[in-house]
Amino acid sequence: MLEALKTEVFKANLELVKYGLVTLTWGNVSGINRAEGLIVIKPSGIDYEKMTVNDMVTVDIDGKLVEGKWRPSSDTPTHLTLYEKFTKIGGIAHSHSEYATAFAQACREIPCYGTTHADHFDGRIPVTRFLTEEETIKNYEHYTGQVIIERFANLIPNDMPGVLVAGHAPFTWGKDPRDSVKNSLVLERVAKMALNSLLLNKDIEEIPKYILKKHYSRKHGPDAYYGQK
Amino acid sequence: MLEALKTEVFKANLELVKYGLVTLTWGNVSGINRAEGLIVIKPSGIDYEKMTVNDMVTVDIDGKLVEGKWRPSSDTPTHLTLYEKFTKIGGIAHSHSEYATAFAQACREIPCYGTTHADHFDGRIPVTRFLTEEETIKNYEHYTGQVIIERFANLIPNDMPGVLVAGHAPFTWGKDPRDSVKNSLVLERVAKMALNSLLLNKDIEEIPKYILKKHYSRKHGPDAYYGQK
Amino acid sequence: MLEALKTEVFKANLELVKYGLVTLTWGNVSGINRAEGLIVIKPSGIDYEKMTVNDMVTVDIDGKLVEGKWRPSSDTPTHLTLYEKFTKIGGIAHSHSEYATAFAQACREIPCYGTTHADHFDGRIPVTRFLTEEETIKNYEHYTGQVIIERFANLIPNDMPGVLVAGHAPFTWGKDPRDSVKNSLVLERVAKMALNSLLLNKDIEEIPKYILKKHYSRKHGPDAYYGQK
Amino acid sequence: MLEALKTEVFKANLELVKYGLVTLTWGNVSGINRAEGLIVIKPSGIDYEKMTVNDMVTVDIDGKLVEGKWRPSSDTPTHLTLYEKFTKIGGIAHSHSEYATAFAQACREIPCYGTTHADHFDGRIPVTRFLTEEETIKNYEHYTGQVIIERFANLIPNDMPGVLVAGHAPFTWGKDPRDSVKNSLVLERVAKMALNSLLLNKDIEEIPKYILKKHYSRKHGPDAYYGQK
Repeated sequence: MLEALKTEVFKANLELVKYGLVTLTWGNVSGINRAEGLIVIKPSGIDYEKMTVNDMVTVDIDGKLVEGKWRPSSDTPTHLTLYEKFTKIGGIAHSHSEYATAFAQACREIPCYGTTHADHFDGRIPVTRFLTEEETIKNYEHYTGQVIIERFANLIPNDMPGVLVAGHAPFTWGKDPRDSVKNSLVLERVAKMALNSLLLNKDIEEIPKYILKKHYSRKHGPDAYYGQK
Repeated sequence: MLEALKTEVFKANLELVKYGLVTLTWGNVSGINRAEGLIVIKPSGIDYEKMTVNDMVTVDIDGKLVEGKWRPSSDTPTHLTLYEKFTKIGGIAHSHSEYATAFAQACREIPCYGTTHADHFDGRIPVTRFLTEEETIKNYEHYTGQVIIERFANLIPNDMPGVLVAGHAPFTWGKDPRDSVKNSLVLERVAKMALNSLLLNKDIEEIPKYILKKHYSRKHGPDAYYGQK
Repeated sequence: MLEALKTEVFKANLELVKYGLVTLTWGNVSGINRAEGLIVIKPSGIDYEKMTVNDMVTVDIDGKLVEGKWRPSSDTPTHLTLYEKFTKIGGIAHSHSEYATAFAQACREIPCYGTTHADHFDGRIPVTRFLTEEETIKNYEHYTGQVIIERFANLIPNDMPGVLVAGHAPFTWGKDPRDSVKNSLVLERVAKMALNSLLLNKDIEEIPKYILKKHYSRKHGPDAYYGQK
Repeated sequence: MLEALKTEVFKANLELVKYGLVTLTWGNVSGINRAEGLIVIKPSGIDYEKMTVNDMVTVDIDGKLVEGKWRPSSDTPTHLTLYEKFTKIGGIAHSHSEYATAFAQACREIPCYGTTHADHFDGRIPVTRFLTEEETIKNYEHYTGQVIIERFANLIPNDMPGVLVAGHAPFTWGKDPRDSVKNSLVLERVAKMALNSLLLNKDIEEIPKYILKKHYSRKHGPDAYYGQK
């Protein structure tokens, strides 16, 4: 059942390791089959080294276990909340990658200081607010998704494929699981370069809007000409 | 004699290398068999690359050699002092990992700036005082254990599985040797992210207490739901 | 056709990966055969892991495709512009390497703080201005080359084999493709050491001019005595 | 001729690569046979990947080529000057390792902020002055050795096995070539941790003298008890 998606999700999880984005069992990637209303996600707390495609867990949109021998990632309710509202995304990645997490902990947005950023994120990478005590107690993982959605009231998820959850870490998404991991990697690189840029010049300004737009549209949308047809 | 524990301690020492926490022959991990009152620990100054399980050294709680062809780690008296007072721990790891050591050298506690920290350490990671000249001369390694214990007068070792010794480096512990190394790794990651968070925002505040408690209890204690049953 | 140059360019592109200068499909290296008026360059957006020598693209000096099954790198017009004006260079490399890019984003030149720098770059590594909106819209990649040339009005490309494009990233060049990548690597190391030097001493001065000249001429020009004859 | 020493020097040079201390062909290690008055050193500008033991170069104490098919390292006169004055050392290593070089570029000594430092260097790691223009022109590499010797007027080379040459990079030494490389590695780790400690606390003080002495004498001298007999 959903063998292709399970393989995709499994491989995308291993890419988190390959790209140096995770430590121990941290992090998770999921993918959605919107026709079936099913989500495949990494099991909770399983070693990446021992994990196989058969360890992937399938749940429905309400989080009910559909297939799999393990508990799904404890962050599953966050993924479900995002899939429900961000209707055009096909995969979600979560990691505590070092530099993106430093920005999340410092509660600082990442301004667009260069074209590496502009190539992938159409503007400042946003930070959520902290969850309230009530939200934390009631359903922590669900409300983690909710504060992201709240922050995206005026943002387009497909043009801004990631967010920093305050005091926590990044979530990124994409058209499929692999694409969501790619965005986690880019976010990490962008965060490291932004930190070092700030150390060199604390009054650094964002690049001109017309360069941001140019770079973003080189890679995305109808006028894209980066890569192959 | 104690073959299983020797294997555990041996493997845990190699994990210090695998995780990039040690340089040259630095660092050491031990494990205790409380029923027998025996501790297994890495030999002093032996290359990790050449080390085998048979190089592990067994000592009793007073540090007397019980089995092994080498001198035990020169830090053995610190381990013994901690095992005596922290009666619920099964393994101890010591390294001079780069970022945790930077905090130890700067004599700065690590505040809880994010959930990566909260997932593993229930509050600020403490720093000891410096040893006095008398303590240093009399029995340096034993008093290194003593200043840790002094610092833990109001802390619970199982909820705060690590410490920074001022001007020295971290010690961490856990339910077994491997768990103690895992806590060294997490401490190192947490330290690096805390440093970078501070560079981004020197007035950064700790995460709300209710989020700290939520994250710590997701992974620890009766209400834990991270990982598998 | 141009098999030797294609092999050189292919290998030089892989060195970007080997030296840790690129992420994903970022970066590109080209080489020129001035007798034939032809440039070989990496295809746009192709995985380094899957790329073979046959994926290289050959264009003429006007950018017209001469051989190859893929679109050339989207940065090709920048390369062409540089080859046209910098008549003594044989290869060009472009990457978003982390520390050099941080300087580019901070719009800071890299002063010569040490002999590592002086061994390879005869003075401060320059930064361009930002492109204007008109330039950006009209022909972004061509004008990226133009702002570099403008910045080199009083600089000698062979003695200063690299530049930081404001808000973007470095371009480097050399006598052949491999040499251009070597200069990208050196620039990255020099940038990292300059950042860390500044963190240690924000009022750091450049090394004396006579040491800069001595080191540069140890490795370059008629009095060079580094390396073998 | 001197086969054992050539092997030692060759292997020690490869350790520079293994420990991540060098880029491209930078860096060099030498060893001395004091009975014969001969020094073996890395050839100038040769790739580490292709280098074999037979590429090592033997020179006499005046720098005259005794055996070998290549030019010796361009830094050979610095090594010779040090061997002449530091009569108890058996090996010398030179690299442009990133963090030690950052301190050299910032012209900052490395104070003893922790026991990692105290275990290997008996006090602050010194910085030389810049060479004068006359010295630079007359015999740059020889005077690089001279400014080191000048700086060591009141220091004991065996207790302080390294130095930072202002605006250049570190030189370290030891009882044999391998030991000199080990000291380069430790210096690099110590430098990185010192920088990060300073970022955390710019008013950080050195560790108490009695702890420095204790740690240094744990590993060195008649009362050493680290490692095996």
